[in-house]
Amino acid sequence: MSDTGLDPEEARAPLHDEDDRMDPGFVGGVLARLDEGDAEGARALVEPLHPADIADLFELVPQDRRAGLAAAISDRLDADVFAEMNEWVRDELIDVLAPHEVAEIAAQLDTDDAVAIIEEMDDEDQRAVLRALEPDDRAAIEEALSYPEESAGRLMQRDLIAVPEHWTVGDVLDYLRRNADLTTDFWEIYVVDSRHHPVGTCKLSWVLRTPRGVAIADVMQREQTLIPVDMDQEEVALRFQKYALISAAVVDGSGRLVGMITVDDVVHIIQEEAGEDVLLLSGAGEGDINEPVLDSYRARVRWLLANLLTALVASTIISLFEGTIARMVALATLMPIVAGVGGNAGTQTMAVTVRAIATNQLTASNTWRSITREIRVALLNGVTVAAVIGIGVALVFTSPALGGVIAAAMMTNIFIAGLAGVLVPVALDRAGADPAVASSVFVTMTTDSMGFLAFLGLATAAGLAG
Amino acid sequence: MSDTGLDPEEARAPLHDEDDRMDPGFVGGVLARLDEGDAEGARALVEPLHPADIADLFELVPQDRRAGLAAAISDRLDADVFAEMNEWVRDELIDVLAPHEVAEIAAQLDTDDAVAIIEEMDDEDQRAVLRALEPDDRAAIEEALSYPEESAGRLMQRDLIAVPEHWTVGDVLDYLRRNADLTTDFWEIYVVDSRHHPVGTCKLSWVLRTPRGVAIADVMQREQTLIPVDMDQEEVALRFQKYALISAAVVDGSGRLVGMITVDDVVHIIQEEAGEDVLLLSGAGEGDINEPVLDSYRARVRWLLANLLTALVASTIISLFEGTIARMVALATLMPIVAGVGGNAGTQTMAVTVRAIATNQLTASNTWRSITREIRVALLNGVTVAAVIGIGVALVFTSPALGGVIAAAMMTNIFIAGLAGVLVPVALDRAGADPAVASSVFVTMTTDSMGFLAFLGLATAAGLAG
Repeated sequence: MSDTGLDPEEARAPLHDEDDRMDPGFVGGVLARLDEGDAEGARALVEPLHPADIADLFELVPQDRRAGLAAAISDRLDADVFAEMNEWVRDELIDVLAPHEVAEIAAQLDTDDAVAIIEEMDDEDQRAVLRALEPDDRAAIEEALSYPEESAGRLMQRDLIAVPEHWTVGDVLDYLRRNADLTTDFWEIYVVDSRHHPVGTCKLSWVLRTPRGVAIADVMQREQTLIPVDMDQEEVALRFQKYALISAAVVDGSGRLVGMITVDDVVHIIQEEAGEDVLLLSGAGEGDINEPVLDSYRARVRWLLANLLTALVASTIISLFEGTIARMVALATLMPIVAGVGGNAGTQTMAVTVRAIATNQLTASNTWRSITREIRVALLNGVTVAAVIGIGVALVFTSPALGGVIAAAMMTNIFIAGLAGVLVPVALDRAGADPAVASSVFVTMTTDSMGFLAFLGLATAAGLAG
Repeated sequence: MSDTGLDPEEARAPLHDEDDRMDPGFVGGVLARLDEGDAEGARALVEPLHPADIADLFELVPQDRRAGLAAAISDRLDADVFAEMNEWVRDELIDVLAPHEVAEIAAQLDTDDAVAIIEEMDDEDQRAVLRALEPDDRAAIEEALSYPEESAGRLMQRDLIAVPEHWTVGDVLDYLRRNADLTTDFWEIYVVDSRHHPVGTCKLSWVLRTPRGVAIADVMQREQTLIPVDMDQEEVALRFQKYALISAAVVDGSGRLVGMITVDDVVHIIQEEAGEDVLLLSGAGEGDINEPVLDSYRARVRWLLANLLTALVASTIISLFEGTIARMVALATLMPIVAGVGGNAGTQTMAVTVRAIATNQLTASNTWRSITREIRVALLNGVTVAAVIGIGVALVFTSPALGGVIAAAMMTNIFIAGLAGVLVPVALDRAGADPAVASSVFVTMTTDSMGFLAFLGLATAAGLAG
């Protein structure tokens, strides 16, 4: 939690353009100072920036300038900046720092942010950093690292306010004022029983609006969303979103309160999980523009090779009709239209289905309804597109038969595309796979193959190339 | 803000499956009660649910059962449930309610939630609901409706805590305890000057941890992110995310504090905005599984027809080579491979670029770097895929020349795909268009056309079909 500095209109004007993106003139200005060896000038420009903006600046300057920038503004390169930085850029900077420097940064961070930095390091560096930490910090981070990656345990912070249920509001206020070493940033107070099991939560606004003498148990809300410590972070994010949570208590297997997760740590997960479907469906892996070229290559080439295989299936189907094509080359000209538009129709349905599954909107209760819904949309789309292409081809080729064949093939393929667009992701999900990862390959293979088969098959059956 | 009820393990077991989706057995149980005319039994099942779960239940039962369910559980069908409900399902339920019933629900809601319901109604119904509201509620909602759709003004609530800068912490505490009609749910206090301009914010945890005698101006943070009332909600969401905000003050054109936005109202926008790219890129419009069939049809058929046009361009290019194909039909068999894999490569780059633009990671400062990065990835991908297909085709067709031609064409098309995948979204963004909306059409057209042109052109030039 922190803020941008000054009035948005005044202070942001030189720094951000109208789309809220960092102004290239500003970035260029910092780089120019560094070019001139004017580290002091660069530092002065960066000085007033919010940590999130300094993190952006590092992402925006060329890779070979980042170490130089870091050296020039080292005193502003603190834990808050690292917490906000793109992970690829951060890992690269961390690589050039000594373990004790990383430990210094990690010690200033909330556990969850420190873990995010340390978990990406290789084992040897990780041990070196942990050795350089104070025992308390080390224990907290080691405990966090003992939970599975992307689990609530990695995401939570251990600093929280927990009070016994027999206290009054006055007791809580006195406790908060008198204990200087308590955390200063929290949004809710957790009320626990003698076994340290959460029994309720209390928003701070309720504490503030209640007289001192009232029992905290009468102010708190008993119903609360408890997060099991091993819950996957995607599930945590969905729960925060669904129940509009600001913070939530994390409990271990025996129900003891072990930490809390706050919404600001979840927001970037919500954004990433929602945004990753488009990357996964296209086979672009993590798809970050700061990812090293070789990593991007490895992530993407796999899917291109998979796509090559499915294209070979379609190619084989075409080869079955070589005789027909040889007699009527126009078929080769038209066949990609049927496959292409069918592919697009399949992608539309698939995108809708994958999103609905990811947001828990599509469940066993409404799968059948979604299938019939997509069939109806596909029929309407199919009739429209088939009519347009059928009439067009009939006129251009002065062949009503060819127009009829392409219309029927288009109708068939859009219908099949609609079915595949729902059934493939649903089947992958039921099989326990992430539907965003592999749906595209199967849907595209279906629409390509069926497009060529329907068009060339119907053309052959109709004796068009007779 | 509210919570789920009881311990997650115990209470959720019958209601949610392991993926946190509502159990079909529970949904079926409610419907079975309704079938038997046992409205009381259905109500008893629904009674303990969180409003967000009741909203889910409405989405999961078939459309023709929703009015019946609403009638059976009318006392639990309150404003909180409507606020959580999918907008299509909500609009459908709102349609069957009388204006005074809608007004009753709207009056209980925060302004932003009430506006979300009312803004979707047609003008006549909207006027009827507004007439049925109390003057205060009406004025607040009418003011909100005066701001542009999807702006901060529609998103903000007017109930907030603002205090003068000369107050002490004790003054603030007394004010909060003594004024029963103040809002009870808030996370930060805004400190304003005599012109009602915000001068700082104060987290409640800071108020709670400070002695009564300290001036609030000494506790507050002066730097804060102010949201202009006409800012687009997507921009608001990005700012909440970037600066990890829990709430933010909204100011009008003259800098006066007019409302506040809290993170729970922004979280679903972050999720929607991040998730919509995959829908927009596929041409699936809003792509909600609850959207009426005709709306989905209208949204999607436009893009299918646009795709038909681009397919015609590719088709025209093929027709230029009819002579070549007639002499060597194998070319028709192989050409979709070049176009298809190129299309996939283009889609990968496009997905990465569109996400980077949407998250403000790709700016004028690093566009050129992104282009060269994608070119390098494309060269690596191109060499790999071209080698595989080239060698394969050379062996299968016992024609090194044909293998060479398809390898060169594949290399060329993947390179062009990489370029188009960056340049098309960047150009659309610079032109002020949403790159997610129209990029696909242009990228696909490029990879299809160039794939056919490169392969058939090289084959012709090489005299393969000679």
